[in-house]
Amino acid sequence: MSEDSLSLVLFSGTADKLHAAATLAAGAAALGRPVNILLQYWALDAFRTDRIEDNRSLAWDATVDGASRPVRGTGHIPWLETFRMAKELGEMSILACSGSLDVLGIDVTALDALVDSSGGIATFLMAAEGGQVLFI
Amino acid sequence: MSEDSLSLVLFSGTADKLHAAATLAAGAAALGRPVNILLQYWALDAFRTDRIEDNRSLAWDATVDGASRPVRGTGHIPWLETFRMAKELGEMSILACSGSLDVLGIDVTALDALVDSSGGIATFLMAAEGGQVLFI
Amino acid sequence: MSEDSLSLVLFSGTADKLHAAATLAAGAAALGRPVNILLQYWALDAFRTDRIEDNRSLAWDATVDGASRPVRGTGHIPWLETFRMAKELGEMSILACSGSLDVLGIDVTALDALVDSSGGIATFLMAAEGGQVLFI
Repeated sequence: MSEDSLSLVLFSGTADKLHAAATLAAGAAALGRPVNILLQYWALDAFRTDRIEDNRSLAWDATVDGASRPVRGTGHIPWLETFRMAKELGEMSILACSGSLDVLGIDVTALDALVDSSGGIATFLMAAEGGQVLFI
Repeated sequence: MSEDSLSLVLFSGTADKLHAAATLAAGAAALGRPVNILLQYWALDAFRTDRIEDNRSLAWDATVDGASRPVRGTGHIPWLETFRMAKELGEMSILACSGSLDVLGIDVTALDALVDSSGGIATFLMAAEGGQVLFI
Repeated sequence: MSEDSLSLVLFSGTADKLHAAATLAAGAAALGRPVNILLQYWALDAFRTDRIEDNRSLAWDATVDGASRPVRGTGHIPWLETFRMAKELGEMSILACSGSLDVLGIDVTALDALVDSSGGIATFLMAAEGGQVLFI
């Protein structure tokens, strides 16, 4: 646990939210801050080896009124590349939530090598202690 | 106010997000950390006595591309049971946001007994002071 | 940077989430806490001069099951007025994320005068240091 750590609970699996999370992680890593990530639900699903290269949808906000959203249809938001960069820039640890693995019916071995291990909420909360936490 | 408190602003009313929030609350309570919850908008709506037992939808992320999401259709995500467990495990206080009560046109008496009281943002922010806060 | 600052990463552009964020910002400002806001993606889009007065949609949660959501159709959620009030109540700074400006293909001059400047994640994280941060 570290006073200046940045901890992210990633819940969402849309490309734009994953990208927003990755830029925060990369920014913190570049500033020398330890980064702890917990993957839950749809964010965990996004890190499955067999889906990680898929084009992912955007958040509801982007699609709700159609034509006025210029990022739509560009086809590629580099969220995965930004997470890889964050890991190279500094100290970032990615934990797959064991409860969410159960919900999705998968094992940690089904996940990309960026994911370091699986564990419970208590493990994450103890690593996050004293720092800042965001739910994305 | 406590240095090690975990405070959650609950906005969303989908079963998966409520469940993610409840697991964080239960984990923190089990670690002996005080938990403060503020219910706004659709999370507040979820705690209405006449709706709290309803099956709730999943987040947009789950439904956006249909078939690939295995949790769909399982019918029951135990978010309410997990909140009840959190309250038994430790010190957890649930506040209904008075502004959101107005928006929804309901009174605090319409809410489940898990909700302790109603109050404003300032009340919540003062209870949350010095600890970690997440918006879910 | 300030120990008691409240920092908000605004991602979502729906009226209800913007309103929830604005009430938290106004509450913190009224308590004398410095407020730092970073606008990303759809929240940034909401602050475009040519769209800021538009009626905005509600979050997925509000619309997923239709008829049971009484706030639907009221037509006006005063998120913008609440941000303006927050700025009058205390010290609030709004930063447009430079990466998101690129994604949306716009310049900071396209944004409402409530937005103070543009900058990167590092600028925001340094201003947020030591305080509480929420992602909305």
